[in-house]
Amino acid sequence: MTIASALGEATFAGRLTAELAARRHLCAGIDPHAGLLADWSLNDDAAGAERMGRAVVEASAGVAACVKPQIAFFERFGSAGFVALERVLADAREAGLLVVADVKRGDIGTSFAAYADAWLTPGSPLECDAMTVVAYQGFGSLEGAFTHVREHGKGLFVLAATSNPEARDVQRSRREDGRTVAQAMVEDAQAFNASLLAGADEAAVATASKGAGPVGVVLGATLNLADFDIDVTLPVAKPVLPVLAPGFGAQGGRIEDAKAIFGGLGWALLANESRGILAGGEAGLAERIRTRSEALADAL
Amino acid sequence: MTIASALGEATFAGRLTAELAARRHLCAGIDPHAGLLADWSLNDDAAGAERMGRAVVEASAGVAACVKPQIAFFERFGSAGFVALERVLADAREAGLLVVADVKRGDIGTSFAAYADAWLTPGSPLECDAMTVVAYQGFGSLEGAFTHVREHGKGLFVLAATSNPEARDVQRSRREDGRTVAQAMVEDAQAFNASLLAGADEAAVATASKGAGPVGVVLGATLNLADFDIDVTLPVAKPVLPVLAPGFGAQGGRIEDAKAIFGGLGWALLANESRGILAGGEAGLAERIRTRSEALADAL
Repeated sequence: MTIASALGEATFAGRLTAELAARRHLCAGIDPHAGLLADWSLNDDAAGAERMGRAVVEASAGVAACVKPQIAFFERFGSAGFVALERVLADAREAGLLVVADVKRGDIGTSFAAYADAWLTPGSPLECDAMTVVAYQGFGSLEGAFTHVREHGKGLFVLAATSNPEARDVQRSRREDGRTVAQAMVEDAQAFNASLLAGADEAAVATASKGAGPVGVVLGATLNLADFDIDVTLPVAKPVLPVLAPGFGAQGGRIEDAKAIFGGLGWALLANESRGILAGGEAGLAERIRTRSEALADAL
Repeated sequence: MTIASALGEATFAGRLTAELAARRHLCAGIDPHAGLLADWSLNDDAAGAERMGRAVVEASAGVAACVKPQIAFFERFGSAGFVALERVLADAREAGLLVVADVKRGDIGTSFAAYADAWLTPGSPLECDAMTVVAYQGFGSLEGAFTHVREHGKGLFVLAATSNPEARDVQRSRREDGRTVAQAMVEDAQAFNASLLAGADEAAVATASKGAGPVGVVLGATLNLADFDIDVTLPVAKPVLPVLAPGFGAQGGRIEDAKAIFGGLGWALLANESRGILAGGEAGLAERIRTRSEALADAL
């Protein structure tokens, strides 16, 4: 491994850094659920999901930082849903858009490695730039994806603190080392990113330290992170920790409050919006995406 | 909802109860990973995975209690892998075999509901009898699957305590109510099953109390459950809690120790074996499955 294979310009981390430098912070959700498909006058089937996905890709290229298909809404159609998804992903690659697969996969050993292979292997039919993952089996259970991060320049977003009320049962639980579960996910992600700098020369480390790292976290935008012992007053991590934040817009988070909510964690912020840009049908989609992207650029 | 729709003879819970009464405890894994496919002289592709899956189904019908495809090993082939999986699932349905989809899905709200719809909706292309789920976002985040449990007689296995060493970071963490994360998963599953008895007449409750409930847990077979504050000396839950236990056989768990390991939790035990029955190629598969199934019947 070299620092370039995980953090260079052509990697997820490098491309995300460029998007943020261009003041693009919007992560455009692709959530073809039944209600939204009806809103678009599309059938609740794989063809409908494909149409919505390709429309979001087309409207997002050069405007949003990335797109994030929620895989559950494709998976409900079985193999036909995955055929549709592969076409959406091919469009996104051709458009040069970063794609975060919202799959929330988690397992151990060769099983987790197989999930990581599915979504992060260069040339695989479901190849994306990054995927969301769940570490109920421990941060170390994600090892099968770390290979793709180190060698193929891919990215991860590890679930840390989420906004649904019942999540606190697990995420605020106290580990034997005294940290909360959510806090440890944040710190372990930062430590992983820092480990990528080991052995590189001083100039490369200085450059990479200012950019985004490849492993980020998911943090709800409507949370008080202090409730999870996540200290947002600490200095910005090097490399900067990417934060994927759902909850702005329709769910009530105010983008103007992002700096207060995330503090030092908010310097590589991707604000996800799904319902807010999808509701209202295909007509007006491009304008809604542009408007939200501009609002984010102004606020951040 | 009636008690019959969640616990009747035709449901996952009812059929599992019948399998256990017939002394079938083996959950035959379908894990088409590269090494095992090579061992079977099959290509590492969707067709190879399909061939392995259909062979395991054929050899398991009437011998094992259920089959458990590890979905990650199909997913790595993208849509082609899901086409292969759909054929394996169709075979299993035709053979009357219970199928547990080892998908470890977890999310919230409509997204989690879409995963549950994918795997548990009667008539859907990926329909199975039960699925494994992850509740990093809280036991309550599984609500989208509970509908399928209550109304369509489906089953769940919630990850509780797993055997990989790094899992303890999360699973032994202490919740604000004093329980460990893993302990709460076990107790919440038992409480959910018990809630299904509410409002039923005395005779129905008496019958259902002796059988397996629809919501079970995954507990590693090589663990000391006391390390997670899981008390195996408590009386058997009513309905009985299904336990899906990987780790017997190749991973070192001894089936003869099952009663000591699981105590009162071990009365609806499904022992998963994957590598132990798959290694050695297709020749001999049926005999390995039969041998392991008989060993389990003798030991339990």
